[in-house]
Amino acid sequence: MTRLQNSPEKILVPRGFSFSALAAGIKASGRPDLALAEVEAGANAAALFTKNRVVAAPLEVGQASLRSTGGRVRALLVNSGNANCATGAQGRRACERVCHEAAKLVGVKSTEVFPSSTGIIGVPFPAEKVLAALPELIAAKSQSEDAVLGFARAIMTTDTRPKIASARFEAGGKQVTLLGIAKGSGMIHPNLATMLVYLFTDIAASARDLKPLLREACDQSLNAMSVDGDTSTNDTVLLLASGQSTATLKESKIRKQFAGTLTTVCHSLVEQIVSDGEGVQHVIRLQVEQARSREEALTVARAIAHSALVKTAWAGADPNWGRILAAAGACGVKLEPSRIRIFIADQMVCRNGVAHPFDEQRAHNALVQPDCDICVQLGRGKSSVRFLTTDLTAEYVRINADYST
Amino acid sequence: MTRLQNSPEKILVPRGFSFSALAAGIKASGRPDLALAEVEAGANAAALFTKNRVVAAPLEVGQASLRSTGGRVRALLVNSGNANCATGAQGRRACERVCHEAAKLVGVKSTEVFPSSTGIIGVPFPAEKVLAALPELIAAKSQSEDAVLGFARAIMTTDTRPKIASARFEAGGKQVTLLGIAKGSGMIHPNLATMLVYLFTDIAASARDLKPLLREACDQSLNAMSVDGDTSTNDTVLLLASGQSTATLKESKIRKQFAGTLTTVCHSLVEQIVSDGEGVQHVIRLQVEQARSREEALTVARAIAHSALVKTAWAGADPNWGRILAAAGACGVKLEPSRIRIFIADQMVCRNGVAHPFDEQRAHNALVQPDCDICVQLGRGKSSVRFLTTDLTAEYVRINADYST
Repeated sequence: MTRLQNSPEKILVPRGFSFSALAAGIKASGRPDLALAEVEAGANAAALFTKNRVVAAPLEVGQASLRSTGGRVRALLVNSGNANCATGAQGRRACERVCHEAAKLVGVKSTEVFPSSTGIIGVPFPAEKVLAALPELIAAKSQSEDAVLGFARAIMTTDTRPKIASARFEAGGKQVTLLGIAKGSGMIHPNLATMLVYLFTDIAASARDLKPLLREACDQSLNAMSVDGDTSTNDTVLLLASGQSTATLKESKIRKQFAGTLTTVCHSLVEQIVSDGEGVQHVIRLQVEQARSREEALTVARAIAHSALVKTAWAGADPNWGRILAAAGACGVKLEPSRIRIFIADQMVCRNGVAHPFDEQRAHNALVQPDCDICVQLGRGKSSVRFLTTDLTAEYVRINADYST
Repeated sequence: MTRLQNSPEKILVPRGFSFSALAAGIKASGRPDLALAEVEAGANAAALFTKNRVVAAPLEVGQASLRSTGGRVRALLVNSGNANCATGAQGRRACERVCHEAAKLVGVKSTEVFPSSTGIIGVPFPAEKVLAALPELIAAKSQSEDAVLGFARAIMTTDTRPKIASARFEAGGKQVTLLGIAKGSGMIHPNLATMLVYLFTDIAASARDLKPLLREACDQSLNAMSVDGDTSTNDTVLLLASGQSTATLKESKIRKQFAGTLTTVCHSLVEQIVSDGEGVQHVIRLQVEQARSREEALTVARAIAHSALVKTAWAGADPNWGRILAAAGACGVKLEPSRIRIFIADQMVCRNGVAHPFDEQRAHNALVQPDCDICVQLGRGKSSVRFLTTDLTAEYVRINADYST
């Protein structure tokens, strides 16, 4: 039985990892902005990256390093405050220089240091600040829960709280621990958008075995959510396996347990990211059912989740299902409106494409809650998707109209 | 030489048309909500409709009528306040009944009355209110400028001002007049979104000859703008030609003049619609250049124009070009970031995908203006598009969070 721990009451730390963080002066606010995770004996790694054509320097460097080492990582170095994106050859050199210096100090190869950045795009990367802070950062590393919390705080940008989920299960007398730390609150969108997710586990697994498990867990969780529909240039999901539990993924029973735990932890991180979405007042658990395929269900869910008119109605707790129907109708799928049903919380509000009598006050009351279920049935097939999204508030606009000024 | 008149200083009224409007009690506010345009001797018509799969009853009825008459219209009846959409067979019957009754009173065939509706979706259509108001509406018709202005006001929903453009040109000693009246301020988006556009002209033309001219003018104007990216269920563009000028479209010189005038009038209506967009503080004239095709340029323009992060940056007059680059990068076109240049007003701000030194204060000052030019060069080809869009403000959210409550 897997026990899941959500941040920050109790953090389960997998064996083999230590953490540290500090303020290197990248953020003008003076808040922590540099974080390190070290794997003493090294870890096998799998990673997923943004699908944006504009890709930040650390993603290019990290991808190249994983290729050259065959997926071997000894340290993860993350900064917030500067995305090191659209910074050209200079940005890439700055990233490589930081990795090189960190590797020297830790005593590993440059390509074993995996870099990540998040923050403003198009501003030269302040490599000097990172370099100056490295010795202190490395010296401070610890396996404590506090160190994990410090790491989670240092990778935040507009996030209002750290995002941590951890879980443990037993396999043949051995305890396997999985710890997830994430960052993201705007630009959250399918295909990994300004989202940094780091998953640390002490299971023994090859890089090749980790990849499909990571992809499957992401499809079920991180790729089925959206705050504002934007896709970032820096999104990264990294899974590191230290092997220190000695339980191995090769055993099919353990593999199954681990896959379930990975999805559970990712789900928890998604919940935390979406509910901390910029200016979010309401989280919407959107269920699209009776689609011909999962891809079709996702297309409809995304169209609804990205409609400014639908999202603003949610902000006003307005059970205006006509906007949901109209957004679905415009998504490109050849829907038959006369087969569509829409439910808000426990009530059917639209039946076969037309109004179905319902208690408006009850629907409004359901939408006023911090989260609300909305279900759209397409009447076309048997596929469905659960999609986590949010309202669009005036506060979101304020946050994002001010970001770089 | 074509003279263009924008509302409401001077309205040029084409021969053969009369207008009227009144408050039938559909809008709770008691504002005018029913409008009529009559063509005494009949007009040949071309129309374009929404591409949404969810289509309002009046669009179904209007399309069927145009087919059965071969594009002949004697009266146009528009109501605001109720979209008559997602109202099922009952909504369609209500629409047909209203057309039937109006036709009887005017003395024409039911299929010669073209219906249009805009307003809330999913609420039963109040046919009785329309029927009760018809005799007074028909009796009040007039060819005056005031009657045109009354028509333009009665079709408004969240619009803050009526939208009218008219133009006149001489062809072989004959004067041809074109009058455009539009409605729309939210859900404005390519492929005709909650937008009603009526174009009245006294040129002599067949329904078949009008269609390609209308499509071409729309592609250049109405389909190259976006306020919030939503696509409505009720969008309609209708072009009516009374023939009373006796100048005929069959002459190629006149055809050319007319096509230019039609595009000019549509452009003016687009400008008026976008600058009256819900909560809009800044209109952005987005130019996407050096694409492989016009379609590719449009895809990039739409991705930028629909990015919540880009639009909120514009609301804050923030020259954050990184968000523009990131939005373009995520649109699905295989862009090469290192070939992209971005200009804000007169300054290059991004060159070959990286920051180009620019005067931030000057860029901010340009973005503070009511409208600002932004140009994105893709370095891929020779196609370009001009796309009119807007910022996303807290005021937009307020307007749309309150709409149906």
